[in-house]
Amino acid sequence: MSLPGPIDPPARLLMGPGPISADPRVLRAMSAQLVGQYDPFMTEAMNEVMGLYREIFATANQQTLLVDSTSRGAIEAALVSLLEPGDRVLVPVMGRFGHLLVEIAERCGAEVHTVDAPWGTVVPLEDIAAAMERVRPHLLAMVHGDTSTTMMQPFDGLRELCDRYECLLYADVTATLGGNPFPTDEWGVDAATAGLQKCLGGPSGSAPATFSPRAVEVIEARRSIEAGIRADGDPVTAHPIRSNYFDLAMIFDYWSPRRLNHHTEATTMLYGARECARLILETGLAANQERHLLHGNAMLAGVEGLGLEVYGDRAYKMANVVGVVIPDEVDGEAVRAAMLADFGIEIGTSFGPLAGRVWRIGTMGYNARKDAVLATLAALESVLRRHGVAVPSGGGVDAAYDVYGTAA
Amino acid sequence: MSLPGPIDPPARLLMGPGPISADPRVLRAMSAQLVGQYDPFMTEAMNEVMGLYREIFATANQQTLLVDSTSRGAIEAALVSLLEPGDRVLVPVMGRFGHLLVEIAERCGAEVHTVDAPWGTVVPLEDIAAAMERVRPHLLAMVHGDTSTTMMQPFDGLRELCDRYECLLYADVTATLGGNPFPTDEWGVDAATAGLQKCLGGPSGSAPATFSPRAVEVIEARRSIEAGIRADGDPVTAHPIRSNYFDLAMIFDYWSPRRLNHHTEATTMLYGARECARLILETGLAANQERHLLHGNAMLAGVEGLGLEVYGDRAYKMANVVGVVIPDEVDGEAVRAAMLADFGIEIGTSFGPLAGRVWRIGTMGYNARKDAVLATLAALESVLRRHGVAVPSGGGVDAAYDVYGTAA
Repeated sequence: MSLPGPIDPPARLLMGPGPISADPRVLRAMSAQLVGQYDPFMTEAMNEVMGLYREIFATANQQTLLVDSTSRGAIEAALVSLLEPGDRVLVPVMGRFGHLLVEIAERCGAEVHTVDAPWGTVVPLEDIAAAMERVRPHLLAMVHGDTSTTMMQPFDGLRELCDRYECLLYADVTATLGGNPFPTDEWGVDAATAGLQKCLGGPSGSAPATFSPRAVEVIEARRSIEAGIRADGDPVTAHPIRSNYFDLAMIFDYWSPRRLNHHTEATTMLYGARECARLILETGLAANQERHLLHGNAMLAGVEGLGLEVYGDRAYKMANVVGVVIPDEVDGEAVRAAMLADFGIEIGTSFGPLAGRVWRIGTMGYNARKDAVLATLAALESVLRRHGVAVPSGGGVDAAYDVYGTAA
Repeated sequence: MSLPGPIDPPARLLMGPGPISADPRVLRAMSAQLVGQYDPFMTEAMNEVMGLYREIFATANQQTLLVDSTSRGAIEAALVSLLEPGDRVLVPVMGRFGHLLVEIAERCGAEVHTVDAPWGTVVPLEDIAAAMERVRPHLLAMVHGDTSTTMMQPFDGLRELCDRYECLLYADVTATLGGNPFPTDEWGVDAATAGLQKCLGGPSGSAPATFSPRAVEVIEARRSIEAGIRADGDPVTAHPIRSNYFDLAMIFDYWSPRRLNHHTEATTMLYGARECARLILETGLAANQERHLLHGNAMLAGVEGLGLEVYGDRAYKMANVVGVVIPDEVDGEAVRAAMLADFGIEIGTSFGPLAGRVWRIGTMGYNARKDAVLATLAALESVLRRHGVAVPSGGGVDAAYDVYGTAA
């Protein structure tokens, strides 16, 4: 074969539902040279990462760490470590990523029950309560913000519900953490997992996660095999964790002062995760959430200023992504292709029932910026006009400017 | 909390059994900006990666790709996708990483049988043959090179054996690929998984892997759930793959022209993996293996030149790591600590029965270099002398020079 040249990506402004363009500071941090896994510097960096992500998750949980996979892997780590085969789990489903929780929990051998809401809405608390009463689950597994619909599920009342039924509460915060309020301890969440590639402003490949003492207790009780070396004899529990790679008990040991060998830490991703957290905490967590809300609101106003309809129940919209109903007269994929080819801007398509009906435009992490919002709106106006959609001239940009005008 | 500063690792020369210092070219490639998951550039980069790793694995396998995890995760992906609960698997064990295969296969619900060899040796073919006759396994799962002992298992005759019993052949080549010959197709290996952090010269966090048509057939037959969205109705097979994240059928789809959504590719790690392969293929695969052998031989000669004993059966030693018996009169950990603190050089400790008895010194990837070998030997001589070990003055470096003298 002829060898391909050095990697040389085209300039892209990634304004989809994530992954988004990484903050250049994160990429620079990731070019730092490696140290050994048990180097004192590495030990310190791992401890720093734990401390930084305790701030990001707003938690005191000791077990706050990185799973060495994409966000999807961390979901599996949480579910396979918390769920034994036959355990009942309740999953409120309001979009594609709820289905993913169902799918993963089924592979863990759990007995999965769902409570569904139409796409574009959230699941009412009373529906969850009724399902809890009926199912009596071991775990309530929720998506916080589902980018497939842009909806963000309220967590009010969930802890009380879980306490009533002695149930653990898991949240997939991949799409929301850092850009929307998610106070883990205040909301009584037992386990939460994320990824770097959304509001945290980094690349996919490392997944911050946190586990409450209650979750840790459940996981620790499933230990049957010594970390790294197989124990002789029978397992101690009937249901050891079905995965080695995602065995959180072993991952806790790896991140503990004992630093028991498990996987070989993806050090470059850890450097990146560390810088993502530093960037947010330099701004301040609340200020960073405000930043996402501001630019999300500007994009939303801009989309409406172009005469386009916003998808979903606005009362529950995530700050960092907006669903845009594709005008009937236009081919959504042709518009996306022109945005990418001619303007270097990526906006998102949709899945399942929304495929071909809704674009998803994100404003998150490094790309929650005024210039990114205005450039996207100007390009969209131009492309829509060339595709025969009658759009008000300057309507998108003007509406976004109005939002910024009152804020800056 | 007070915010930690920008990441600023100390200078380290990582001469342990891996991870090793990454090639700076790989780190630079990883600082390239992201593109979208389905960007034409990304599609092309993924196809390039498949082609590059077909060369590295010396295979024509279509399904040659990256698993988004460390090397350990790719082992699990192979085993959980190839093994159904109750399937018999035979694992020849000659060190720690054989135990890891056992441990992972047990978590997959497989019926695991082992054939053991003392540490420091390899498992004789006739022992494997006898065990195959007895066990009749679905899968023979082997570690190619086990860094815990520095031993490399010969693969001669294994394909014939597997054909006789209609058995699949899996190899963990994490520690050997790129630095030792491993012709996947010539040896008839059905599945092999690696990592970037050893002879490939990159950081941990992405795992190249390859699967023969025979392995693909087994995996495809286990499809029961549509990629990404759960199908309604009952599963098609009795034993769907127990993991979503490591479901190779779904990962194949993601890397296929259909690009069905699964995880969000860890693009930065993919850039790194691509550059690792480019570096090796620029040199030439065979030349790169020769390079590892040369520097490995120089290190081995140097260790003996210092009057130290080499661990294990030399006839089966991997090119890229040497076990060094720690002299009785010295505390191995004190020597390692002084090497790191005073010379910035990391050498490895050992696990299990070899802990405290053997150091492991690696010469692989970027650090398979003359200056790295000589600097390590000079530092080791100095530290040993200060710790009261009588070592021949210049004996290590001189012996290494002798090896280079005949080669360069």
